[in-house]
Amino acid sequence: MAYKDEKLHEEKVFKDPVHRYVHVRDRVIWDLIGTKEFQRLRRIKQLGTSNLTFHGAEHSRFNHSLGVYEIVRRILVNFEDRPNWNKEERLLCLCAALLHDLGHGPFSHSFEKVFKLDHEEFTKQIILGETEVNVVLSKVANDFPQKVADVINKTYKDKLVVSLISSQIDADRMDYLQRDAYFTGVSYGHFDMERILRVMRPYEDQVVVKESGMHAVEDYIMSRYQMYWQVYFHPVTRSAEVILTKILHRVKQLYEQGYIFKMEPTHFVSFFEEKVSLEDYILLDEAVVYYYFQMWAQEDDAILRDLSYRFINRKLFKYVEFNPNLQMKEWMELYRLFNQIGLDPDYYLVVDSSSDLPYDFYRPGEEEERLPIHLLMPNRELKELSRQSEIVEAISGKKRTDHKLYYPRDAIIQLSDSQPEKKKIFELLYQTE
Amino acid sequence: MAYKDEKLHEEKVFKDPVHRYVHVRDRVIWDLIGTKEFQRLRRIKQLGTSNLTFHGAEHSRFNHSLGVYEIVRRILVNFEDRPNWNKEERLLCLCAALLHDLGHGPFSHSFEKVFKLDHEEFTKQIILGETEVNVVLSKVANDFPQKVADVINKTYKDKLVVSLISSQIDADRMDYLQRDAYFTGVSYGHFDMERILRVMRPYEDQVVVKESGMHAVEDYIMSRYQMYWQVYFHPVTRSAEVILTKILHRVKQLYEQGYIFKMEPTHFVSFFEEKVSLEDYILLDEAVVYYYFQMWAQEDDAILRDLSYRFINRKLFKYVEFNPNLQMKEWMELYRLFNQIGLDPDYYLVVDSSSDLPYDFYRPGEEEERLPIHLLMPNRELKELSRQSEIVEAISGKKRTDHKLYYPRDAIIQLSDSQPEKKKIFELLYQTE
Amino acid sequence: MAYKDEKLHEEKVFKDPVHRYVHVRDRVIWDLIGTKEFQRLRRIKQLGTSNLTFHGAEHSRFNHSLGVYEIVRRILVNFEDRPNWNKEERLLCLCAALLHDLGHGPFSHSFEKVFKLDHEEFTKQIILGETEVNVVLSKVANDFPQKVADVINKTYKDKLVVSLISSQIDADRMDYLQRDAYFTGVSYGHFDMERILRVMRPYEDQVVVKESGMHAVEDYIMSRYQMYWQVYFHPVTRSAEVILTKILHRVKQLYEQGYIFKMEPTHFVSFFEEKVSLEDYILLDEAVVYYYFQMWAQEDDAILRDLSYRFINRKLFKYVEFNPNLQMKEWMELYRLFNQIGLDPDYYLVVDSSSDLPYDFYRPGEEEERLPIHLLMPNRELKELSRQSEIVEAISGKKRTDHKLYYPRDAIIQLSDSQPEKKKIFELLYQTE
Amino acid sequence: MAYKDEKLHEEKVFKDPVHRYVHVRDRVIWDLIGTKEFQRLRRIKQLGTSNLTFHGAEHSRFNHSLGVYEIVRRILVNFEDRPNWNKEERLLCLCAALLHDLGHGPFSHSFEKVFKLDHEEFTKQIILGETEVNVVLSKVANDFPQKVADVINKTYKDKLVVSLISSQIDADRMDYLQRDAYFTGVSYGHFDMERILRVMRPYEDQVVVKESGMHAVEDYIMSRYQMYWQVYFHPVTRSAEVILTKILHRVKQLYEQGYIFKMEPTHFVSFFEEKVSLEDYILLDEAVVYYYFQMWAQEDDAILRDLSYRFINRKLFKYVEFNPNLQMKEWMELYRLFNQIGLDPDYYLVVDSSSDLPYDFYRPGEEEERLPIHLLMPNRELKELSRQSEIVEAISGKKRTDHKLYYPRDAIIQLSDSQPEKKKIFELLYQTE
Repeated sequence: MAYKDEKLHEEKVFKDPVHRYVHVRDRVIWDLIGTKEFQRLRRIKQLGTSNLTFHGAEHSRFNHSLGVYEIVRRILVNFEDRPNWNKEERLLCLCAALLHDLGHGPFSHSFEKVFKLDHEEFTKQIILGETEVNVVLSKVANDFPQKVADVINKTYKDKLVVSLISSQIDADRMDYLQRDAYFTGVSYGHFDMERILRVMRPYEDQVVVKESGMHAVEDYIMSRYQMYWQVYFHPVTRSAEVILTKILHRVKQLYEQGYIFKMEPTHFVSFFEEKVSLEDYILLDEAVVYYYFQMWAQEDDAILRDLSYRFINRKLFKYVEFNPNLQMKEWMELYRLFNQIGLDPDYYLVVDSSSDLPYDFYRPGEEEERLPIHLLMPNRELKELSRQSEIVEAISGKKRTDHKLYYPRDAIIQLSDSQPEKKKIFELLYQTE
Repeated sequence: MAYKDEKLHEEKVFKDPVHRYVHVRDRVIWDLIGTKEFQRLRRIKQLGTSNLTFHGAEHSRFNHSLGVYEIVRRILVNFEDRPNWNKEERLLCLCAALLHDLGHGPFSHSFEKVFKLDHEEFTKQIILGETEVNVVLSKVANDFPQKVADVINKTYKDKLVVSLISSQIDADRMDYLQRDAYFTGVSYGHFDMERILRVMRPYEDQVVVKESGMHAVEDYIMSRYQMYWQVYFHPVTRSAEVILTKILHRVKQLYEQGYIFKMEPTHFVSFFEEKVSLEDYILLDEAVVYYYFQMWAQEDDAILRDLSYRFINRKLFKYVEFNPNLQMKEWMELYRLFNQIGLDPDYYLVVDSSSDLPYDFYRPGEEEERLPIHLLMPNRELKELSRQSEIVEAISGKKRTDHKLYYPRDAIIQLSDSQPEKKKIFELLYQTE
Repeated sequence: MAYKDEKLHEEKVFKDPVHRYVHVRDRVIWDLIGTKEFQRLRRIKQLGTSNLTFHGAEHSRFNHSLGVYEIVRRILVNFEDRPNWNKEERLLCLCAALLHDLGHGPFSHSFEKVFKLDHEEFTKQIILGETEVNVVLSKVANDFPQKVADVINKTYKDKLVVSLISSQIDADRMDYLQRDAYFTGVSYGHFDMERILRVMRPYEDQVVVKESGMHAVEDYIMSRYQMYWQVYFHPVTRSAEVILTKILHRVKQLYEQGYIFKMEPTHFVSFFEEKVSLEDYILLDEAVVYYYFQMWAQEDDAILRDLSYRFINRKLFKYVEFNPNLQMKEWMELYRLFNQIGLDPDYYLVVDSSSDLPYDFYRPGEEEERLPIHLLMPNRELKELSRQSEIVEAISGKKRTDHKLYYPRDAIIQLSDSQPEKKKIFELLYQTE
Repeated sequence: MAYKDEKLHEEKVFKDPVHRYVHVRDRVIWDLIGTKEFQRLRRIKQLGTSNLTFHGAEHSRFNHSLGVYEIVRRILVNFEDRPNWNKEERLLCLCAALLHDLGHGPFSHSFEKVFKLDHEEFTKQIILGETEVNVVLSKVANDFPQKVADVINKTYKDKLVVSLISSQIDADRMDYLQRDAYFTGVSYGHFDMERILRVMRPYEDQVVVKESGMHAVEDYIMSRYQMYWQVYFHPVTRSAEVILTKILHRVKQLYEQGYIFKMEPTHFVSFFEEKVSLEDYILLDEAVVYYYFQMWAQEDDAILRDLSYRFINRKLFKYVEFNPNLQMKEWMELYRLFNQIGLDPDYYLVVDSSSDLPYDFYRPGEEEERLPIHLLMPNRELKELSRQSEIVEAISGKKRTDHKLYYPRDAIIQLSDSQPEKKKIFELLYQTE
């Protein structure tokens, strides 16, 4: 039997708190899960620093990747005998679902920003490079790794396949909303996925949703909206993210300045020099990062030491609301005062902005352009969701942004009351709110 | 106001997936949670290697410790106005609940076995030593750290207080059963804790349970039984544990033999030499262990390299059932054969035994002697649980043991079919089952 | 001890699927639950005909009333030591919460429409009249029954007390959304009530919500929106409601025409004559209604017999979308055709309209005027919810109406294909959609 | 296409709180659900009088019947391609599952006892008699109604089919345990059905369970045990059952004595005379029974009036533990005293016994003989469950019986303290406990 059609002698299941069970019958999928590149996702948390806010959020990207695979698997069971659906694409969909996050590193967001990396690029490299994953995929067909990479990269010719993995209601989002809700314990993030799966239909170059399922989709969009503001952009999580980013900035700066580290930051050198090989990238999991942070909490450089200590021991920055347009004067004054008291404002006075677009009907030319959701009407026509749903219309295309100013309150409080800057700083901070 | 009575201006809550919210009003508790020794528990998984079997089980001891605190807090709300209850012990109970696992290190079980450590001893040292935790506790009263240590050590004079934290139905067990069930996703581990809390009563030197709650307690005992065999003793988890233990053995042995490591195992030296200081102990969190394992997967020593590689990439040992009494002959033959094919049997042919005593009425002189559960009858007499419950009686005092023989099936399979040992080994292995 | 302060020797609990347990300590509450007027609520379904759509929705008003009581009880535990809260009102709040639906009869909506009744009026009569409930309440104080009636009637002087029971985020709504979701099994209707309860504050003449809880309130509003359209206005439920209403119309009409019933409709006579005494009203529970429907399914009058048979055996009307403004011509033509084929259109061609206002900031002068929800800002000012929440603003004040035309498809289908009306009727019906 | 193979144009789903969705594709199933005999099950509560103890337990037999159908449907999806499974039996299994409780009347237990009825006999009559159900089944094949009746009656030749519907781990039990747990809200009754379904295998003349699923089965057996004692045999439920039975006894006795009822008990006459026709039986749903009870609460006969009033208004009997073997003397004395104070002891002093056999390996010749559960071992042999599971062995074959003595405490309390019987009665009652 061809490798691509090989079934396990007996179905394997993973116990999954969100989908109850993840089912694996295909030999290819089983082999992919066993590769070291996929196992590495166990050592990368799905939500980065969110566990410092929600102590349950320790779940890994391994976890999520299995979940996305399982959702696509269930969708395809429903698609099996439908017109418009090409059964030949089944294995490709499953592999792309399983591997879509393969290139994620620890704390991707901060690392990518500071070291100018792109996890999607690494996903591609892992799939196409000299890896265990590539060996497995190549056994299916010579061009199979490229196909999988194309689907994940959204350049695959069959857009219907792409839309299963990347759209405004794809398996990725449906899994992470539910999973992140489960592990954080928040009561948002629930929607009737079983119903959505039942009303999904393949339709030309996209997956659409039968109109009768519109309310379930509304509920999903609202869940997404709530999860963004309640969990993903939680101000405490962002505080940890700010510190993390500043650690990376500092250590890079020190390296560039020829600073002598107590322990050579071997794993980081290629990151500092912005020429990261695939091998270096794969080695750098979350444990390694934590290990270095602990080392750096004992470095001589006061800023690196302090920030690393703060991250490890969760002595986070506090925040006030901040409007960057209206409050530049206050900001500049604070900047001056921080310098005066010896707190480098580039590290200790940080504006962080989050913004979200809960749903959009169409955003041509934007960085992450995702297809709008289409409803399949009883007359077989399509209608874009926000034209049918008042609720979705109300939030559609509305970008909401939130700015906060982060600073180490503990350090300011420790200043002597006789230091005039102390009072001024607090006055300015409370004014910004 | 005395520090011990200080309340936070506003109640703080932690979102908890198991208890919904963990509530903190006491300044002392809030300060303890903020110490670096307590924050360190975030970097130690509650279930060690279980996440390699149940991918959701990434939750930390931080998580569990807050849960135990919350359960005790709820119990004490119920006790508040009851006779037999000394309100003065409230803060002591809460602190002991919160801190009872403070001395746990990464993969405690294996580390303790190999390096002859005792996490309870470290818990005591952290509470009584020069730590942030000790600073906070000492502010309550000079003798308060000692009291907390005594409760955790079960030597505190008021046994009623002790029994809240350590008995056969204590807050510790009630939290971990539910929490481990939640994060693994198994459907065991559920029982009606709310009801148990409502029927708990302080009674002389122990917490007892009103007879009307007997069925809820039965359910709890059964949950415990199921969790042990379905989760805690899962054979795949034990495989990872076996490998982990063997890594530690190997690295210690190499150190003792003067082996030159590519990277000096600084963090481990005092462990190898069995003179671990508190400071060394605290530094060694799970991230550090994983970091070393990754280093060791690149060492020259074949055994250390192979085992570390296996652990990191989840290439685990397989197992067969094994009866150490009846199968010594097979075992010795396998031992010989393993040597012959160049697999050191001390590292690659491992018997692992698990045993559990789901409930016991009385076990004087045993290593971990826990009080039996007593029911409070309508006539105010006490009756030991197994005398009232047929189900509990049925399993009471019955120790169940399970032995498995672990070995690297992949390595045996890779032997050439022409090697006569290959066939013999498989024959012997299947014979043991 | 005064009756009003009397506590039960031991707390009583009701196992409740939604709130886990309903706790009763007050003698007064316990006695009220035991009255026959309150027990009667067991024989009236919370959701009338919804069980014909959602087979789980068999839960009673008894069920819901205990739930509302329990929510108010929990709110008051939080209010206990807050400024602005008058502890003396506690028992009044609990009684009003428990009894607020006391005057509901079976299928209230239809009965009230056809027989011009008002369940709020009967609630008042039961509280103030010669009933077991009145006996219990009067033992608290002579004017206590009147106070309870006033709170339920929203005329009580302390508007803070009123707003616990009747506002846009009162205990009534919080219970029924969750309860109806639980029993129907839909995945809407969930929100984080525990969090809402924690952020509720007494504030002058209303209950307000701390701004930090805004997202939980948004979630509640969305749940409400979804429950209305997914459950309460489900078109199949409305079909059953249409038939039920027509049965009552028919039987009243027959009575007025002097029709001789096979079995005298004794329980209904005072309803037909629109002079229903309290005693008559209380006797008419759902079992009695069903009994009569079964009798009427054997009556001589064809319309009454058919409609009753349909209701009992769930042979419901089908529906098409209908726009009463644009489709009067089609409607009149259908009316004519129905007459022609011998189906009285007054009974067999029924337009039903549902409309909902998910949230409103202010609707002075409207029939059911409920207070808007106010957020308590950090600076102690109030802000009306829709001014802070984009989502709520989006749906605020927007009344959505849905019209459907109900008709007995089975009867039309049974017409001979040679009857020209058959084809015409179907053409007209499909045109309306 | 043959009627038996006809599929609905589009799958129909019922929202079900327990199984999420019940799926119907077969035209035959859809038509059966629409029959009036099946719809009648909506008017019969699954748990009879349990709602007087657990207010959520209002769910109907309709509800449960759909659930059993859905479980069998899911089992058969798993069986589809297995050896030993005859696909031709699929529709038969589904119909038998759906209809297995069709003959249940209101409060079956009491009615059957008093009027010597047998609901299984009526199930058969409905399936084979002149009913809508029979019309549907006969369209499949002439002998199909008889086959369905045979499966339900356990006389069908293919015992594998029978064991799906009636065994110690059949679809019936799996549904009711979960459903009754859900609606009562108790935390027992949960087990991992999804896992059990996955490990079920057709094996010669029975359904067996793969050994790897043993723990899930243990959990199911324990759930059953707990549900029996916590829910089904709850003493308050039994109190209501006792009163109900006595009402039926009394009214039958009165009828036999020629008592003149205010309202002729038409629906009951054939029950009193023990010659109930199918038509009479079907008419008597729960609403009709409640209607009569309300009438009888206004009868002249003091016993009938009082008992009916008690049932309707939940003024139940209290109970004490009672040992019928040891306490005959006390019983006789109480009997005498009750007579003396004018409370007919045949109606007011009632011993009720409940007993359960949670699991049995084999009970040949017993009234309800169910197959033991067999585990399918890795070597393809079968082992009876209690030989493998210690827990099941512990409770296997152990019948547990509980006796209680019910009496109207309110009536005794109302006796004057000067009446010497009062004191004696209470002394005797407390002695029995």
